Amino acid sequence: MSKKQEENPSIGPIVKSVLNNYEEHLPLIKVDASNQINKDIIIDLIHRLRELIFPGFFNQKPIKADYLVYYVGNLVEYILYQLQKQIKRAFNQQSTDRPSLTGAEAVARVFLERIPAIRDLLATDVEAAYDGDPAAFNHDEIILSYPGIFATTVNRLAHELYLLGVPLIPRMMTEYAHGVTGIDIHPGASIGHHLFIDHGTGIVIGETTVIGNHVKIYQGVTLGALSTRGGQLLGGVKRHPTIEDHVTIYSGASILGGSTVIGEGVVIGSNAFITKSIPEKTKVSVKNTELQFISNGKKDRAPGSLQDEFWDWVI
Amino acid sequence: MSKKQEENPSIGPIVKSVLNNYEEHLPLIKVDASNQINKDIIIDLIHRLRELIFPGFFNQKPIKADYLVYYVGNLVEYILYQLQKQIKRAFNQQSTDRPSLTGAEAVARVFLERIPAIRDLLATDVEAAYDGDPAAFNHDEIILSYPGIFATTVNRLAHELYLLGVPLIPRMMTEYAHGVTGIDIHPGASIGHHLFIDHGTGIVIGETTVIGNHVKIYQGVTLGALSTRGGQLLGGVKRHPTIEDHVTIYSGASILGGSTVIGEGVVIGSNAFITKSIPEKTKVSVKNTELQFISNGKKDRAPGSLQDEFWDWVI
Amino acid sequence: MSKKQEENPSIGPIVKSVLNNYEEHLPLIKVDASNQINKDIIIDLIHRLRELIFPGFFNQKPIKADYLVYYVGNLVEYILYQLQKQIKRAFNQQSTDRPSLTGAEAVARVFLERIPAIRDLLATDVEAAYDGDPAAFNHDEIILSYPGIFATTVNRLAHELYLLGVPLIPRMMTEYAHGVTGIDIHPGASIGHHLFIDHGTGIVIGETTVIGNHVKIYQGVTLGALSTRGGQLLGGVKRHPTIEDHVTIYSGASILGGSTVIGEGVVIGSNAFITKSIPEKTKVSVKNTELQFISNGKKDRAPGSLQDEFWDWVI
Repeated sequence: MSKKQEENPSIGPIVKSVLNNYEEHLPLIKVDASNQINKDIIIDLIHRLRELIFPGFFNQKPIKADYLVYYVGNLVEYILYQLQKQIKRAFNQQSTDRPSLTGAEAVARVFLERIPAIRDLLATDVEAAYDGDPAAFNHDEIILSYPGIFATTVNRLAHELYLLGVPLIPRMMTEYAHGVTGIDIHPGASIGHHLFIDHGTGIVIGETTVIGNHVKIYQGVTLGALSTRGGQLLGGVKRHPTIEDHVTIYSGASILGGSTVIGEGVVIGSNAFITKSIPEKTKVSVKNTELQFISNGKKDRAPGSLQDEFWDWVI
Repeated sequence: MSKKQEENPSIGPIVKSVLNNYEEHLPLIKVDASNQINKDIIIDLIHRLRELIFPGFFNQKPIKADYLVYYVGNLVEYILYQLQKQIKRAFNQQSTDRPSLTGAEAVARVFLERIPAIRDLLATDVEAAYDGDPAAFNHDEIILSYPGIFATTVNRLAHELYLLGVPLIPRMMTEYAHGVTGIDIHPGASIGHHLFIDHGTGIVIGETTVIGNHVKIYQGVTLGALSTRGGQLLGGVKRHPTIEDHVTIYSGASILGGSTVIGEGVVIGSNAFITKSIPEKTKVSVKNTELQFISNGKKDRAPGSLQDEFWDWVI
Repeated sequence: MSKKQEENPSIGPIVKSVLNNYEEHLPLIKVDASNQINKDIIIDLIHRLRELIFPGFFNQKPIKADYLVYYVGNLVEYILYQLQKQIKRAFNQQSTDRPSLTGAEAVARVFLERIPAIRDLLATDVEAAYDGDPAAFNHDEIILSYPGIFATTVNRLAHELYLLGVPLIPRMMTEYAHGVTGIDIHPGASIGHHLFIDHGTGIVIGETTVIGNHVKIYQGVTLGALSTRGGQLLGGVKRHPTIEDHVTIYSGASILGGSTVIGEGVVIGSNAFITKSIPEKTKVSVKNTELQFISNGKKDRAPGSLQDEFWDWVI
């Protein structure tokens, strides 16, 4: 008997009560289930895919031009091998009432064929961040450190897997990015080119959201559902808004509902709460929130709102 | 003399000024303090406890049913051994003016005896997430990827240690979960069964909050104190609200104050700011925020609010 | 040919299409660029600097007083060596149209000479957190677990590098802290002593913000720009507000604009949206947001606002 075991003379009753409890909640355990998705490998794949998309930015060693073909070849082979294994496991863990593809390798291969198209989109996102942010130092800074670019990269990857019908993995990917960045974009959301997410913490973009091109979204914005009281019955229904091209949504605004369409060129002011469609080229803001001032113990209404120039600066 | 040292010929003055500075701020250093809590081990314990609670979901290798007893036995022994060491250190680091238990091993053992009860609660949380979220694919997805489940798991564990009077460790645990998820639940908060946290980023739940059963909380909600101007004198006073059963709190709402009670079945609309009690079965929303529109340079009030159907969809 | 290669008989077309795509988006690749900043080392340096600032709190082994000089010497030498290498690389990656220092080692050395001054400030921040938070158990808990202290530590370090003209690295440091804490403070922001950030998730503090002494900032606060429509042309212009001494800013408030000055002793209530200066000692809150109640199907205006005691509790 080891020293540790002597110090803890009897863990038997604890072990027994835990084992008994396992039997009471079967959805919480995975025993004799040999082919479960491995979360660590999913996270590793995200980083490998980022190395494939932005070669030389996140590597331990510099990449020589002469060897670039081997670099890409090794990465593609590794990603294909690991990803198809995880996709196979995801299909096994799938509940039976939804359609699925069965050829895990074919799915992984089609996904990898889409990497150039994903890079085309990400190049526009980096450009949009540079054009939109006075604090951006150069393109390197954006790729190396902007959380919006990381969340968008992961979402564009996860969205392709989502479109290919892969269960579980896309959401694991986007929730990893959510944890790292505070930006919660469901893999189902469809996003055009030149997306710029600034700061980003607290952004929520729901499963059936459709976002056009050249859209800017600031921290704390929700693109959400009006109600989820239907629960699982609402699966598949369009519950989240459509955002058309060249829309800007300032911090803390909420736009809700599956039939809500924000028209082309619309600007939504901070903290606006919107549940109906907005026609194109409109600017919407919360009407001057009345503020109240107390100075030397006396209450004063402000001599004019503190916000009446909202459109002077934003338009 | 090494090459590195030659390159940096004299770091002596820097070293000396840092050492002098150490003496000016004694609370910022821990020297000759051999038994300090190890943050890395606390984080490791969180992950081991999660493996004990959800066996097979977060493991590198599949778990065979035949070996389940050894799996649990090994984990329980390891957790007990490491946890009691850290608890002992936490008691040593404790300021002297608060009561403490002294038997670190006894505390760790009682904590582990509560794992089945914690699992009973977490099983209801997983169920509540599945029932409440149309985007939830299956129970696996919730356990593997939902930040609300991770934050709730850590909080339920930390709360037991908090109730057992363990200092420092519970808060280190919940702040780790806060970092990973953006959900900040103080270990003192008491939470009933069937909690559903959706998205979660920006949620703050204070130390003396009491939450009933079947409560839903969305991103950006604060359950906070009215004022902290008493500082340390307020320690132990109930400063945060009580939320009764079957309450739903939509995104961005703030509910403040230790005598504020949100009655059974209440629904709180997005961004509401509440500092008084609400009677049961009431629905509260911010009255139609007036929005202001500019289109083709002309200001227009909306033809009716954009929000007047709030209750049509939410009730 | 290996077994893996047989399973994936031809990855050639995928590799080729990725390589072709690399040529179309040159800002997204770093090839034959042997001296790129290494993000992992920047993150490691943050942790080493934290060990230098708070010795004994985050170390694997206890530190003996007798050996403290060696502990500090080793850390300083390691940090100086690694940091100057990364600074050199940062200067190389710099776009050519901004001024730079060239002596990477001199810059790293000056930075390290400022550690005692940074510790002086951090000691006041720990004190402010202890005085301001009734839930704070002791100073250890604040140093070990408060996200506000971590974000402030990283910001005070990054700000010194920013002042020394180091590109890229300061923002990589603060974005790492942003990821860990949800608190997004640009390294350009200038911050006085006794800063207290509570909870913190969702806070955004822009590049040209100036914050005085004894300032308290709660979760979800934005200190931002009025407009970024000038994009890169606005680089260097003061776009973010000035917050004077003894100001408190409650959760969710937004204060915008480079000429906005929040005077000494001002208190800004939750969710206030402010784009003009506020004179000293004023208390500003959103005027009682009207709430709407539905109970038993009947709409009711509240018998008086739920918020009219805002100043009773906050003043």
